[in-house]
This record gives sequence, C-alpha cells and structure tokens, in this order.
Amino acid sequence: MKKAVILVSGGLDSATALAIAKAEGYECYALSFDYGQRHRFELEAAKKVAAQARVEECKTIHLSLNEIGGSALTDDSIDVPETPTEGIPVTYVPARNTIFLSLALGWAEVLDAEAIFIGVNAVDYSGYPDCRPEYIDAFQAMAALATKAGVEGKPVTIKTPLINMTKAEIIQTGTKLGVDYAQTVSCYAADDQGYACGKCDSCRLRKAGFEAAELPDPTRYQ
Amino acid sequence: MKKAVILVSGGLDSATALAIAKAEGYECYALSFDYGQRHRFELEAAKKVAAQARVEECKTIHLSLNEIGGSALTDDSIDVPETPTEGIPVTYVPARNTIFLSLALGWAEVLDAEAIFIGVNAVDYSGYPDCRPEYIDAFQAMAALATKAGVEGKPVTIKTPLINMTKAEIIQTGTKLGVDYAQTVSCYAADDQGYACGKCDSCRLRKAGFEAAELPDPTRYQ
Repeated sequence: MKKAVILVSGGLDSATALAIAKAEGYECYALSFDYGQRHRFELEAAKKVAAQARVEECKTIHLSLNEIGGSALTDDSIDVPETPTEGIPVTYVPARNTIFLSLALGWAEVLDAEAIFIGVNAVDYSGYPDCRPEYIDAFQAMAALATKAGVEGKPVTIKTPLINMTKAEIIQTGTKLGVDYAQTVSCYAADDQGYACGKCDSCRLRKAGFEAAELPDPTRYQ
Repeated sequence: MKKAVILVSGGLDSATALAIAKAEGYECYALSFDYGQRHRFELEAAKKVAAQARVEECKTIHLSLNEIGGSALTDDSIDVPETPTEGIPVTYVPARNTIFLSLALGWAEVLDAEAIFIGVNAVDYSGYPDCRPEYIDAFQAMAALATKAGVEGKPVTIKTPLINMTKAEIIQTGTKLGVDYAQTVSCYAADDQGYACGKCDSCRLRKAGFEAAELPDPTRYQ
C-alpha cells in the first residue's frame, strides 16, 4: 500500500489534507511539531484529528523554535495582532514550513513513503511566502537531490491539495469527507482549553470560510 | 557588519568553514544540533571550536532525530561500518543537511544574516547526496522563495567554501587560518572522551587527509 506523511497541525486545513490523503488511498503517517508555539492546544487537537482519521502512526517531534524566536507565535514578547496588517504579518515563523517539510522528508525516506501532504493554501491565507506554489515546487526539486530515495529514482512528491481552494471550498471538501471541524483549532492565541480568540488573522479567515460555505461554524469562541 | 550563521558540528570540515567565514570578515553565529547522535562528544568539540573562533553567539538546537531513526548515527540497532561499503552508506541520516540548513535559515532570517556556511565536501566524502553542489544550489533557490527576507529581495546565500577541496587542502587551509584540529572530532563512533575509532569512514578520510597534507595528525585514537 502506498504511504504518505501528513503534516497535521490540529488546524482546519491540515485535517482536510489528511482526509484527502485517506480518500486517495494512502496509508497515513501523521507528523506534528511541539515547537514552543504559543497556541499549544493545537497539539491536543492534532492528536484527536489523527486518531479520528485512524492513521497508521502519529508522531510528535520536539523542536525548540522559540530558541530562534522572531515571530508572534514563538516569542511571548511579540503580540498576536487582532486587526489585519500590511505585508507579511508578525505571525510568520521564519522558515517554518521548510523546517517542517524537511523533517517530514526525513521520516518519509525512512518509511519509504512516496508523498508528503501539507495543507498550505495560497488563496485565503496570511500571505506567508512558504505557502505559495512556487515555493512548494522548489522544495520538491531540492528534496529530489537531497535524499538517497531521490538519487535512487524514487523522489518524494509534495502534495498540496488545498493550495488553490478558497477557505469555503476547503470546508465543503472536508465536510463531505467526514472531517469533524469541532475538533480542530485554528486560532493563533487559543487558550489552554482550545477556545479561540475570534480576532486573529487565522480566526477571521476561518470564520469567513464557514460563512461563505454556508455551514455552521463549530468553533468554540472565548 | 555582515553576519553569517555557521553550521558547526565539532568536526574538521565545519571548523575550517568557520575559520574561512571569520577570515572573510563575517560576524559569526555558530549553530549546532543535539539530534540524538551516537557520537555525542562532537557537541563538546563544537563548543570548543566556536569558543576558539570567538563567535558572536553559539546556539545548540535540540531535535529528536532518533525518533525518526533510519541511520547508524541515530539508531543504536544499526552498527557503524568499519570497512568501506558500496553506494550511500548506512551512516547517511535521512534529510540531515536539509533539516540543519532549514533551521539555520530560520535563525539567519531572525538575525538578518546574509549567509549560511556549511562545511560540505564532494571530493573526499562519504557519498551523501546532500553534500553535492547541485543539492546546495537547489536549497538556495528554495530558500529564496521560502522566506520573508527572500521575498523582500535579500535572499540568503549558502556558502560552501570546502565543496571542491580535497581533505588535504581543507586541512592545509585551516592550518594556515589557525584552526586547532586537536579540538575537532570527526569519528562516527567516538567514545565519551572523544577518542576516535580509527576505522569508520570518517576516520579513514581524516587520517588520509593529514597524510596527504603532510601534517601531523592530532587525532586521539582509542
């Protein structure tokens, strides 16, 4: 059976990416990161999402990105904005998707997995550079040269099924596939019970997505 | 002053790369990884090498690569070979340089550093795919698309000053720059006092390098 590593954050997008990987017939290996993020409840959500999807294995890698800092998500001295900002916001974590994909690449090679799924989106998103299709293409080209699997003619494919969907389309797709979005947490500043702030960029995108999808929003707001 | 992040493993090559970065006038930030490696003494060596070079800052990121395994360096159930093997050896750590460069990329962006130095070598090396020039070029192209710095027209440069040198040339270059190779540990199976096995691939390359350079080998063998 073909295998895939799925990056599962506990949020809405990655839960949908996981459901799509299952629907495409992959044996799924969920990978999460305890990287010192402010919104730590998402790790609990990630475990629930992976369990609901009955993944083959669920792994959490510990990684002290707060030693590097430089983002509102990893540095307590930088506040999460409650209103939209110009340009790339302070919630951008330097090189985060590259770091996460690199670790997924290592695990994929050990598992002999043929794909990595990542729930990036370049439509209803925060403007992060490492969510764009040209970045994903460049990562895949690099990965083919980086690994023993690539050199031996079995390069991994980076799958981004959500990249061109609107948030509403993502929610509609996941709902059809049986994703329980009540278990997901998207908020950048969720409290330790997983209640969302309703104000941050991620909350705004999520809320607008449920409205546009004309589906009830199961988010638990503070 | 221009800044650079230098990947410092405690080995001969990265100590030389650090000395070259200093000689080129960079303010140097040394980055090491505690990744569950078998040869843990190299972390002590990395600290000594960084201190001798009087770096601006020396950071060690903790990262549980042994959770992924798949290499003689991160999985105790796989022995380090004592004789040369065909193809890419079992000491290859899946995606290791990609993971290390990704984390260096994150720190470089926070520091506003313009370069990352990595002591990879594609002449006297173990045949790892992530030491080849085409891999480094692909990583740099990906990094320019991955980061806020890249999008804003200040992409980081991946500098590989050793990539086309023989081991003897590396040793001669470092010796001229004042590197104290007695402080470096290259062995994949060094004991907890840093004594080298003298048999593994890394020991063989190092020993032959000092011989070819016609310089005394300060390595402490078991």
